Amino acid sequence: MSTLQKKRGGNCMLLDKVNCPSDIKDFSVDQLRVLAEEIRQFLIENLSITGGHFGSNLGVIELTLALHQVYNSPVDKIIWDVGHQAYVHKILTGRKHLFPTLRKYKGMSGFPKRAESEHDMFDVGHSSTSISAALGYAIARDLKREQSKVVAVIGDGAMTGGMAFEALNHAGHVKSDMVVVLNDNEMSIATNVGAITNYLTKLRVDPHYSSFKKDLAGILQKIGSVGNKTEKYLKRLRDSLKTLLVPGMLFEEFGFTYMGPIDGHDLVMLKKYLEQAKNTRGPVLLHVVTQKGKGYAVAADAPDKMHSVSVGFNEKRGSAPKLKPAALTYTKVFGDTLIKLAKQNEDIVAITPAMSIGSGLVSYAEQLPDRFFDVGIAEQHAGTFAAALACAGKKPVLAIYSTFLQRAYDQVIHDICIQNLPVVIAIDRAGLVGEDGETHQGAFDISFLRCIPNITIMMPKDENELQQMLYTATEYKDGPIALRYPRGTGVGVKMDGEYKLIPIGRSETVREGDDVAILALGPMVHVAEQAAEMLSHDGVNARVVNMRFAKPLDESLLVELAERRIPIVTVEEAAIAGGLGSAILEFYAQKRIAGVELYPMGLPDHFIEHGSPQQLLDSVGLNAQTLADDVKSMVPLKQKRA
Amino acid sequence: MSTLQKKRGGNCMLLDKVNCPSDIKDFSVDQLRVLAEEIRQFLIENLSITGGHFGSNLGVIELTLALHQVYNSPVDKIIWDVGHQAYVHKILTGRKHLFPTLRKYKGMSGFPKRAESEHDMFDVGHSSTSISAALGYAIARDLKREQSKVVAVIGDGAMTGGMAFEALNHAGHVKSDMVVVLNDNEMSIATNVGAITNYLTKLRVDPHYSSFKKDLAGILQKIGSVGNKTEKYLKRLRDSLKTLLVPGMLFEEFGFTYMGPIDGHDLVMLKKYLEQAKNTRGPVLLHVVTQKGKGYAVAADAPDKMHSVSVGFNEKRGSAPKLKPAALTYTKVFGDTLIKLAKQNEDIVAITPAMSIGSGLVSYAEQLPDRFFDVGIAEQHAGTFAAALACAGKKPVLAIYSTFLQRAYDQVIHDICIQNLPVVIAIDRAGLVGEDGETHQGAFDISFLRCIPNITIMMPKDENELQQMLYTATEYKDGPIALRYPRGTGVGVKMDGEYKLIPIGRSETVREGDDVAILALGPMVHVAEQAAEMLSHDGVNARVVNMRFAKPLDESLLVELAERRIPIVTVEEAAIAGGLGSAILEFYAQKRIAGVELYPMGLPDHFIEHGSPQQLLDSVGLNAQTLADDVKSMVPLKQKRA
Repeated sequence: MSTLQKKRGGNCMLLDKVNCPSDIKDFSVDQLRVLAEEIRQFLIENLSITGGHFGSNLGVIELTLALHQVYNSPVDKIIWDVGHQAYVHKILTGRKHLFPTLRKYKGMSGFPKRAESEHDMFDVGHSSTSISAALGYAIARDLKREQSKVVAVIGDGAMTGGMAFEALNHAGHVKSDMVVVLNDNEMSIATNVGAITNYLTKLRVDPHYSSFKKDLAGILQKIGSVGNKTEKYLKRLRDSLKTLLVPGMLFEEFGFTYMGPIDGHDLVMLKKYLEQAKNTRGPVLLHVVTQKGKGYAVAADAPDKMHSVSVGFNEKRGSAPKLKPAALTYTKVFGDTLIKLAKQNEDIVAITPAMSIGSGLVSYAEQLPDRFFDVGIAEQHAGTFAAALACAGKKPVLAIYSTFLQRAYDQVIHDICIQNLPVVIAIDRAGLVGEDGETHQGAFDISFLRCIPNITIMMPKDENELQQMLYTATEYKDGPIALRYPRGTGVGVKMDGEYKLIPIGRSETVREGDDVAILALGPMVHVAEQAAEMLSHDGVNARVVNMRFAKPLDESLLVELAERRIPIVTVEEAAIAGGLGSAILEFYAQKRIAGVELYPMGLPDHFIEHGSPQQLLDSVGLNAQTLADDVKSMVPLKQKRA
Repeated sequence: MSTLQKKRGGNCMLLDKVNCPSDIKDFSVDQLRVLAEEIRQFLIENLSITGGHFGSNLGVIELTLALHQVYNSPVDKIIWDVGHQAYVHKILTGRKHLFPTLRKYKGMSGFPKRAESEHDMFDVGHSSTSISAALGYAIARDLKREQSKVVAVIGDGAMTGGMAFEALNHAGHVKSDMVVVLNDNEMSIATNVGAITNYLTKLRVDPHYSSFKKDLAGILQKIGSVGNKTEKYLKRLRDSLKTLLVPGMLFEEFGFTYMGPIDGHDLVMLKKYLEQAKNTRGPVLLHVVTQKGKGYAVAADAPDKMHSVSVGFNEKRGSAPKLKPAALTYTKVFGDTLIKLAKQNEDIVAITPAMSIGSGLVSYAEQLPDRFFDVGIAEQHAGTFAAALACAGKKPVLAIYSTFLQRAYDQVIHDICIQNLPVVIAIDRAGLVGEDGETHQGAFDISFLRCIPNITIMMPKDENELQQMLYTATEYKDGPIALRYPRGTGVGVKMDGEYKLIPIGRSETVREGDDVAILALGPMVHVAEQAAEMLSHDGVNARVVNMRFAKPLDESLLVELAERRIPIVTVEEAAIAGGLGSAILEFYAQKRIAGVELYPMGLPDHFIEHGSPQQLLDSVGLNAQTLADDVKSMVPLKQKRA
């Protein structure tokens, strides 16, 4: 029995009766309010156990209820941007019982997923895609001459992403019927401004509105002929009005009908405006103001639980790690080291596309605010902005997750690498990220970066090597360096007190052995060491090499291994296709060094869903036991004891 | 002696005296006008011989002169978006004499290049990067407490790119001094609207302007208390004013001071407003209206010459091909085939991010306007929009150049491939594109796509196979297909009258032979056939295989070659790193098939500059002779005659 049930003396809850959107169709506003409270309680209880995105979901309870009452999902298409705020939608679409498995291996995804429900229209995880997706659905509907409605829900953070603007621009041009609900939870709209805008909006959505438009040209012409005094008056009014109408005008400029802002927790207003928006021709932007974590106070009797869940409340992207407070994460080492380096080297500037918390840059931003640039969810701009800073003699460090670097790919090629600029690309969350699943895995960065000329790609075996590599990268002047490191905690090694340069393109042998060589990248070095230890019990003497660099390769090592006919296993937490193993194979092939036996281990050629990092690593065979088994099979029989 | 000199009876020209920006600093407006005419003539004469971007450069002659008189390059930073309009800038910065080498191998680039001149601040080729770059320079200046000015020149087309908005958003937020000149050459601003906006702008840039602002709150409050009549009045004025002020309001919303629109051919206005913009605090957007191809009439006595140069006048991106009218290009085969297929299959929709001409879709757009979507320069949106259309049951064909697909990389992964949607990505300009140089080469698409699960990648050996592959791709329902094909003309084969499905992942042996196998992708098949013919004279019997697919691979072929110990040479017009050769090496390594000799040929690990495609192919050894030599070296001595 839930806390709420207990409070009510065990009475039946509305939520118990809700298993699909049609179950709430006839609910009164009062019933919806009760249901909202029950859902709030449900989320607090469940997420306090499973973790997950807390604040963003508490903020959209009323909005989601109103959407599912006004729209007829799945005939009407409700499309969530980013998708971390779709828990309430999941509750209303038959997935209540799956919440204990939320974001767990083989359990319910933390994001909308078409494979999970017919009510999930578009898989998502990254931000700013929903307007494009909604427009695609709208155009397809128009072509098929169907009558369904399309609505996208996008946060104010996601609106800074360039592709959201690209989509607004296109949608405003083609004028297909669709609604974009701007879920504004930054509370940036002052109430006094909002009141007048609200009033004007009310007039605007009035069906008589369009007739006014026709009269205006004439009126304005008359005013225009009155002379200088009127011009002065016009000028004054113009600027004042502009201020009053922010931000609606921006969307109107794009060809949208703007409505709002309205209170996103007021079910009466939500239903009313959603109905109006739904029935308005052409694209509509409905501006809804919500409060992240709304109703959090209800859970005041369980502050400890709430604390652990609350990690990531300010995270726009839905990818906040559950940090154990005492653990030394790669992210923290990056952030702390960058502060120290930046204090020594005034050329260093840090850039993040809306990931200051996730990238460990909060303290940096506090200590060095003039040299910190959070550019918003704007990966493309971040890349080119960094390039220009390097052109102008600065040492930019672009902190970005592997999966979001995909958004800045052309900028890495076209602006950073062609100009061979000394930009440091600090790639956090490289490899498997765990609970966020396939949209967030950092699987491809080695493959998509390695083909670009001029770039150096490195990965530290532990948190100490991370600080040394970051130092090396900030000292490096000959071109761009990508420094990739995983999500989560380091291996617990002692941190050096002094910085040392790591020679570019040179590996480190961490264990000698001649039967077989395990060439590992990043923390896989430690897995390789464990495997080598296991193998030693079988009489197999495995060398373990910390490759450090996926580009350039340590060619002298590779030549030596080939000359001595030592079989090779490569291991990396990255896609096999185009990865480190592939690079080594290419090296031998291009140098016409034949006969080298090499077995590449890494991420396979399928998308990897959510789960704990260890579960996922096990599922793809990236653990010591599998590595040992695979390595053993490489060693000629005569060398094996068994 | 130029035509102009002849007209003037051989008098000395102003242009002869201009070798650097300081040479025009003291020119009067009358002198600038004469110089503009001389430059116009210079461009017409030179480009009629060399080719190049004609209209865009004729349109910015006065703007460029004004910029170089108002700004002090290279201390002040002039940054060109796309860069195809920087010819006048090149003339004014000491590169007049290089125009005969424009876009030629080892000659002057068609784009700004830092390596070419200290006046070129940022390498470019793709659109929408200039505001990010300008902001980077502006921030670096602020951090260094320097006094230099920064100005970006961006076209109205490039403004639709999402990253331009990301940059506006960031620049408007940080308020660093910079000027964005919006070079509006679409003539979309009606003159009557422009006149009033011009007037208001004049007031706004007045130094007394800011004092008005303070008075306005009070005035408005009084008006607001008058009652309903005033509210009605306000509402009417609001909408009318909004219309009058388009598009300035949009930029004001972003935090820019908007000035304009002004006539971009009026040197007096240009100088005046550039001076004002330069001296205004914070970010300024100066809206300049220019006419593409301005002064084209001057050359009315040479219309034929002009015609050949004029190809690409409507091309926003600076990458228009010089099509020989009679040749059957891959682009044309794509466009024509798509029309036929779309007429048979009503699910087909075509999407292009502002490349309807370059992608051969003009006729398609005319014949099937409802199923054609030019989304503007908006690659990210294009990718996700296509994904959603596929979700909704449509068969989207996204026509995009290889180099611009880099801009939609995350959308390919996150929106198309994770959802395994049957989107056809028609990748034109795959491989070397020639005169546009390193920013436009389609070198990386195989490498960056191949690591993505679910995708199929194919390339036709000739224009006939292109039509069959396009047919196959539009019929394929199991996931995304990338169909890459080169720029330029096909090999002249006969076109099949009927469509045939090409089996996915199956190669075609085009020449039998057992001494060595050349596994070729795309038109390299024909180069391989030529090489095989050469080799046959040396007694080497080379098999030539048209691989067709870079993913999935023809595994049975590969196993057969390995079993028979036939050495392999792979050849592709794509980066070796991560390319087809790499894929085959990975296949053998993962299957633990050892001892296969493979030599990969393709594009090397450096950026490839401009030149004719054949010159560039020769420079990287992708021709029959080099291939024959390399293949020969693979064949064991006993099999060689020599």
